[in-house]
Amino acid sequence: MAQYQPPIRDMQFVLHELLETESALSALPSHEQVNRELIDQVLEEGGKLCSEVLFPLNRTGDEEGCHYDGDGVVRTPAGFKDAWEQFKAGGWPTLTCDPAYGGQGLPGIVGMAFSEMLNSANQAWAMYPGLTHGSVECLGAHGTPEQKALYLPKLVSGEWTGTMCLTEAHCGTDLGLLRTRAEPQPDGSYKITGTKIFISSGEHDLADNIVHLVLARLPDAPAGSRGISLFITPKFLPDADGKPGVRNNVKCARIEEKMGIHANATCVMDFDGATGWLVGQPNKGLNAMFVMMNAARIGVGLQSLGLAEVAYQNALVYAKERLQGRSLTGPKDADKPADPIIVHPDVRRMLLTQKAYTEGGRAFAYWMALKADEAHHHPDTAARQDADDLLALLTPVVKAFLTDNGFATTNLGMQVYGGHGFIREWGMEQYVRDARINMIYEGTNTIQSLDLLGRKVLMDNGAKLRKFGKLVAELVESEGTREDMAEFINPLADLAQKVEKLTMEIGMKAFQSQDEAGAAAVDYLRIVGHLVFSYFWARMAKLALAKIDQQADQPFYQAKLATARFYFAKLQPETAALIRSARAGAAPLMALDAELF
Amino acid sequence: MAQYQPPIRDMQFVLHELLETESALSALPSHEQVNRELIDQVLEEGGKLCSEVLFPLNRTGDEEGCHYDGDGVVRTPAGFKDAWEQFKAGGWPTLTCDPAYGGQGLPGIVGMAFSEMLNSANQAWAMYPGLTHGSVECLGAHGTPEQKALYLPKLVSGEWTGTMCLTEAHCGTDLGLLRTRAEPQPDGSYKITGTKIFISSGEHDLADNIVHLVLARLPDAPAGSRGISLFITPKFLPDADGKPGVRNNVKCARIEEKMGIHANATCVMDFDGATGWLVGQPNKGLNAMFVMMNAARIGVGLQSLGLAEVAYQNALVYAKERLQGRSLTGPKDADKPADPIIVHPDVRRMLLTQKAYTEGGRAFAYWMALKADEAHHHPDTAARQDADDLLALLTPVVKAFLTDNGFATTNLGMQVYGGHGFIREWGMEQYVRDARINMIYEGTNTIQSLDLLGRKVLMDNGAKLRKFGKLVAELVESEGTREDMAEFINPLADLAQKVEKLTMEIGMKAFQSQDEAGAAAVDYLRIVGHLVFSYFWARMAKLALAKIDQQADQPFYQAKLATARFYFAKLQPETAALIRSARAGAAPLMALDAELF
Repeated sequence: MAQYQPPIRDMQFVLHELLETESALSALPSHEQVNRELIDQVLEEGGKLCSEVLFPLNRTGDEEGCHYDGDGVVRTPAGFKDAWEQFKAGGWPTLTCDPAYGGQGLPGIVGMAFSEMLNSANQAWAMYPGLTHGSVECLGAHGTPEQKALYLPKLVSGEWTGTMCLTEAHCGTDLGLLRTRAEPQPDGSYKITGTKIFISSGEHDLADNIVHLVLARLPDAPAGSRGISLFITPKFLPDADGKPGVRNNVKCARIEEKMGIHANATCVMDFDGATGWLVGQPNKGLNAMFVMMNAARIGVGLQSLGLAEVAYQNALVYAKERLQGRSLTGPKDADKPADPIIVHPDVRRMLLTQKAYTEGGRAFAYWMALKADEAHHHPDTAARQDADDLLALLTPVVKAFLTDNGFATTNLGMQVYGGHGFIREWGMEQYVRDARINMIYEGTNTIQSLDLLGRKVLMDNGAKLRKFGKLVAELVESEGTREDMAEFINPLADLAQKVEKLTMEIGMKAFQSQDEAGAAAVDYLRIVGHLVFSYFWARMAKLALAKIDQQADQPFYQAKLATARFYFAKLQPETAALIRSARAGAAPLMALDAELF
Repeated sequence: MAQYQPPIRDMQFVLHELLETESALSALPSHEQVNRELIDQVLEEGGKLCSEVLFPLNRTGDEEGCHYDGDGVVRTPAGFKDAWEQFKAGGWPTLTCDPAYGGQGLPGIVGMAFSEMLNSANQAWAMYPGLTHGSVECLGAHGTPEQKALYLPKLVSGEWTGTMCLTEAHCGTDLGLLRTRAEPQPDGSYKITGTKIFISSGEHDLADNIVHLVLARLPDAPAGSRGISLFITPKFLPDADGKPGVRNNVKCARIEEKMGIHANATCVMDFDGATGWLVGQPNKGLNAMFVMMNAARIGVGLQSLGLAEVAYQNALVYAKERLQGRSLTGPKDADKPADPIIVHPDVRRMLLTQKAYTEGGRAFAYWMALKADEAHHHPDTAARQDADDLLALLTPVVKAFLTDNGFATTNLGMQVYGGHGFIREWGMEQYVRDARINMIYEGTNTIQSLDLLGRKVLMDNGAKLRKFGKLVAELVESEGTREDMAEFINPLADLAQKVEKLTMEIGMKAFQSQDEAGAAAVDYLRIVGHLVFSYFWARMAKLALAKIDQQADQPFYQAKLATARFYFAKLQPETAALIRSARAGAAPLMALDAELF
């Protein structure tokens, strides 16, 4: 009963009007040919695939789940394999990949927009190509020329898929504890032995081969995270022609029963002397894997953006159709037995919260993708560095802020439906269950916050943060004297000042004890998230005001302006609480002895 | 793998030290014999039943779910019926019921403590007796002497169970729309025809008979909510001996697939000319049903309190056992490969949030139960009225604030577990799924907030609110000059002042437009929730300080004091954001035309 329409108008607004993508890409030699028409075509055609092929499999896939058929065999839900074939046939896996390996070489920002739609349509399905894309990026950055030549064309085309094998039963966040061993063999390969858990897409029936990127320890490796190496360990060893040959000694032992993403196989993988090959330098595996993890973290933010969008669309339809009660100010539709529930202020609060989080998240995430394109391809070194710094700074924010908001947003969607939201047939409860994992995997949101405050802000004395502050200052400078922008610019400028002060304050306290950073980190990340959203909502309000002045597409821009106003009136005030909590320090958390909890 | 220990020490703290229940009950003639020993015995014995019999059925019940065996037959999960027999044999259904009908006549506050444990152990199971208890209260208040004599002994003993049949497919919140008809018959009975949905415990195999309390319309009934009458409609018509006789024409058509509480049957009930009898006055059915609904609303708050407690217990065990990473200030357990995660500030933030919400909720809910006992049984009219006013004022708060907090708390429990929290076998994800419905049923939390702000506060010009304000003012007065209480009393007094101002401000604005109340209501309820929590946390801190002074049971009171400090430092600051949002008014919500969303 749920529905999904690709939000192409809003995507175009972000891509073409807010970010002026065509113009921005014209500065990047590898993407200078990418124009608006091409981007729109991807949105249209990709949107069709998502809404017509993948979305209809979302609820059936959730209900059926993956099957463990014994002896390492995993079967995906009905229709998944067929959708995969259509996905491959349309060339979608190759969209943003390197033409040297069969890719179409489109910029990441285009892939980001497509990825949003994939996740709105079917997060569990989208994880199969999502992980594969991560492994392409990792091998592209760290593989040998031979490894690239052998694996990348198959992974790019979607003939094979990829996984990342990090977690073990006793270690997830703290990978330094991992025990999987890699024994060197005379032929230069390694025998990998150990058990990995929580391996998304670890085994399935979509592809001819599955390429595992596995973290393991060499015999002489130092203890901890500096003794971890990365290995490529395919399910079938490629034969002389590069085709799947001998079965490797890696096997799915079982799949997990879990709260959501039922249609993605979460596997326990047993490596029993499996043949693997080193990727990158010995003992530098964590660095190599971080290429994949950083991309994956942005990807997880996108998953929640996708779920937020589809939850909003459905809640909106329901709120307009469901007749229940009368407006507090008197009947609005006196001919009907009751008014549609969208007349009620709190239903509107829920819908506008969804809308403001979703559209703000879209602006933020797509802008991040553009920064990634610039970081990779800008001809100017300083521009590359700036883009890379902003990307590094805000990767944990896009992951944690968008996934926390996505969980809130899917829950609001359910709440709009009332009791019907809790029932399977309406589809809303699946969005809540699927969205929940995004706050946990690829580094919990606490880990993201420590990455932001500890590594990205305090460790370089706020240099990266100041680069974002400069963007804010420029906007405040250019729009700060306009009366019609005051309602957006003033709270933005105020928050930017507060972030600056708060950062210094925490930095000073952290000199005394690192627990001070740990105590403030989660609040701090949300505050920075609101700074980013305030910045983009102010910019979007500015565009909307200009278009309304020109009397262009009034309804769209009126809605954008109203949503900006809602954001500053009802959501940004959360920062008042967050700042108080962040400033409360470590003592209220650390005072109690662990035994007394 | 999950565990549950009845939190008897903390329950005793609330019952005996904070609320001085024995002394409070001594003023109520019907309960003056109830002493501490008796209460403790109920906690001990009831706790055993919950932890040993019901808790082991929680996860198996969730996984198996209820079965619709066709032709109206519903089967509960394995073990449920046996547990019901033990529950009956122990006399537990009779605990707080009227001795005239076989009850033990214990005060509601004792039943509340028992109910918390039932819900920690197994919310889905606890709903079968929970609904029954509600129907006992409703019939006790509105049934004829003959109806009481016929039904109450069976419902009290647990031989029969009860339901409340309100919702229809097209109406839940707005019961004025309901269509189920009641045709008067020559013998004084009625033929009930219509379909009810979302009927919890509507059909099952636990009891010999199921007594439905059904809202329906008489032929000449006025439109809307003033034309609704209440009928008693048993599954089997009682025969001359009061035993289940002829099968009535009411049948379960199917059970819903839903996100959680899988082990409670959520039924679609078809009434096809079923025989029923009027309860209370014609067209006054909604009033009669409100006896049941008010009790049920507090009961739903209790459900979330129970889930919060068990989620906290498990997260705490995990946080102490799970070794991962090192303390930010250097290794705390250098002999082990890593420190337990409870060394990390943000893990402590999550645990302390759970603890502060749970213990604050316990104080609030038990106090409400005492107010209910006083409202029913106090010999002094003014004391009864005061208790009744406080109960009426805060019923929507205990429902919405505790269920919102319970969802946050179970989610924090999952987050402490990381990826393991998302996996079924650890049990945490079930708590999240079960807790989610509590924010929706018995009136969504938005409906609760409108009840609080509109009906309970603005409609009597704040008179009931001032009664709670008086309790706060007395505490501020008596403790406000103590230096060691300043950290608790100052933010309490400050918040109380702000609530007073905010209430007046909203009241003034609501004169212009009722949408102003609707726009502020959800924020307002959370602010009042924090006022209540601030009051109880200040009182608990006072008790803890006194006991620490006397060097009594140091660890318990140190923990209580630290949790009070945490509450004021990290949770109460939320009010800063809520007040800003509440003051933003209706315009940001109402400005956008529904078609432009």
